[in-house]
Amino acid sequence: MGHFRLLIEYDGRDFEGWQVQPGGRRTVQGCLIDAIETISGTTPRVTGSGRTDSGVHAEGQVVSALVDTRLSPGELLRALNGNLPRDMVILDVERAAPEFDARRDPVSKLYRYAIWNSPLRSPLRVGRFAHIPLALDLGAMVRAAEELVGTHDFRCFQAAGSGVEETVRSIYGLDVIGLSGYEIAIEVRGSGFLRHMVRNIAGTLIEVGRGRRSPESMRELIESRNRDLAGPTAPAEGLTLISVEYPGPRPQGADSVGKSAS
Amino acid sequence: MGHFRLLIEYDGRDFEGWQVQPGGRRTVQGCLIDAIETISGTTPRVTGSGRTDSGVHAEGQVVSALVDTRLSPGELLRALNGNLPRDMVILDVERAAPEFDARRDPVSKLYRYAIWNSPLRSPLRVGRFAHIPLALDLGAMVRAAEELVGTHDFRCFQAAGSGVEETVRSIYGLDVIGLSGYEIAIEVRGSGFLRHMVRNIAGTLIEVGRGRRSPESMRELIESRNRDLAGPTAPAEGLTLISVEYPGPRPQGADSVGKSAS
Repeated sequence: MGHFRLLIEYDGRDFEGWQVQPGGRRTVQGCLIDAIETISGTTPRVTGSGRTDSGVHAEGQVVSALVDTRLSPGELLRALNGNLPRDMVILDVERAAPEFDARRDPVSKLYRYAIWNSPLRSPLRVGRFAHIPLALDLGAMVRAAEELVGTHDFRCFQAAGSGVEETVRSIYGLDVIGLSGYEIAIEVRGSGFLRHMVRNIAGTLIEVGRGRRSPESMRELIESRNRDLAGPTAPAEGLTLISVEYPGPRPQGADSVGKSAS
Repeated sequence: MGHFRLLIEYDGRDFEGWQVQPGGRRTVQGCLIDAIETISGTTPRVTGSGRTDSGVHAEGQVVSALVDTRLSPGELLRALNGNLPRDMVILDVERAAPEFDARRDPVSKLYRYAIWNSPLRSPLRVGRFAHIPLALDLGAMVRAAEELVGTHDFRCFQAAGSGVEETVRSIYGLDVIGLSGYEIAIEVRGSGFLRHMVRNIAGTLIEVGRGRRSPESMRELIESRNRDLAGPTAPAEGLTLISVEYPGPRPQGADSVGKSAS
């Protein structure tokens, strides 16, 4: 048996999210398990850093996998990529310590939420950007974002009906960036995120950008701990998990892409 | 009857190119004609600046259209966008002089060829980037590109079997740009392009990048006027028509996007 850390990129459009589900729906985890079974002949134990929703993309999802194989990391990478569908790819494989757990161990995660803020939809950005046709006040969004940075009880941004009781999280950085033309990116790095938290933050910042709520109202919103007072959940298609960081000497993430393949 | 200039964006993946074809294949021109017929009740005359191939994208294709309508440009834009599939959109509509001809009148066109130069494929770039897994020498590609700038007989880059006799064209600029990570863009602006010319230039520059031919060999290649001596046609999916420029006081292109819509 070998214990590995995998780095995975996927286009979330045609997946029903990360997590294996009953009923044989197409999921990233399910396709990964199928590919490993094809190679090793046995069912692996596979744990992702978190469960991305249906339609959410990843440039750097991290996975711990216990696999019945004698393949080296480089051999495993090539064998897996030969057995995966074209909307997902293994970017890196390395041996992991026996106690490594991709879900439990992250020290931070980085997400990007991409907005196409033109009155007209963009065919070349369908499925990767959320289309917000009405003009957004970027300066107001930046000020609101600053209010959310820090360690807070973020219960107001947790999906309704989600059962997590411990809802204190740390946001280390939350940037609203006007890119060229009509593109806006919201980049958020934090200790961890509640279910729908990034999309609910994006939906709330969009309401700030539209003048429907003030940047100064963010503190009150957090203190309310009331999901009904936050903005709507922004569409899944704008969201990408960029990287997941773990303790240790070498940072994990997009920068290490393909290292063990070369 | 109104004569209009349209600016169009499309994702070329699910189109059999620009040009209407026998057999009812799905083309950009065909979908545009269908939408105009729905609005005006009559068949319009629609001419594109050029015929993009199957799989080729456009950020700023320009079209002249003679339409039986009393709608204003802004009304026509909204009516058309309500009747087009989601992989194409009208970005701008303005009234055109009776003599305007999108195909005959351009003074220049700008294309971008996008390359993903990583040993591993990228699911998030499928259909938009050509995947070249072997390492490319960017410096050699830049030097080769410089040799192609100018007014030359570019017959060596014309698709085999293409019937055009006049094969002298001017390339005003040809840049090979290393973007972040593994992304490379080849941007070429010219007076006009022969069939497959941009993709054949890209295929030849990729061979230079792989060390299979030298930057200095470009002159000899041009002078040969022999298609067999140039590189292979690079895949359609990497190519995007960025903009088309016409004479007159106001430049056409991506910068004017949505102007008449606001």
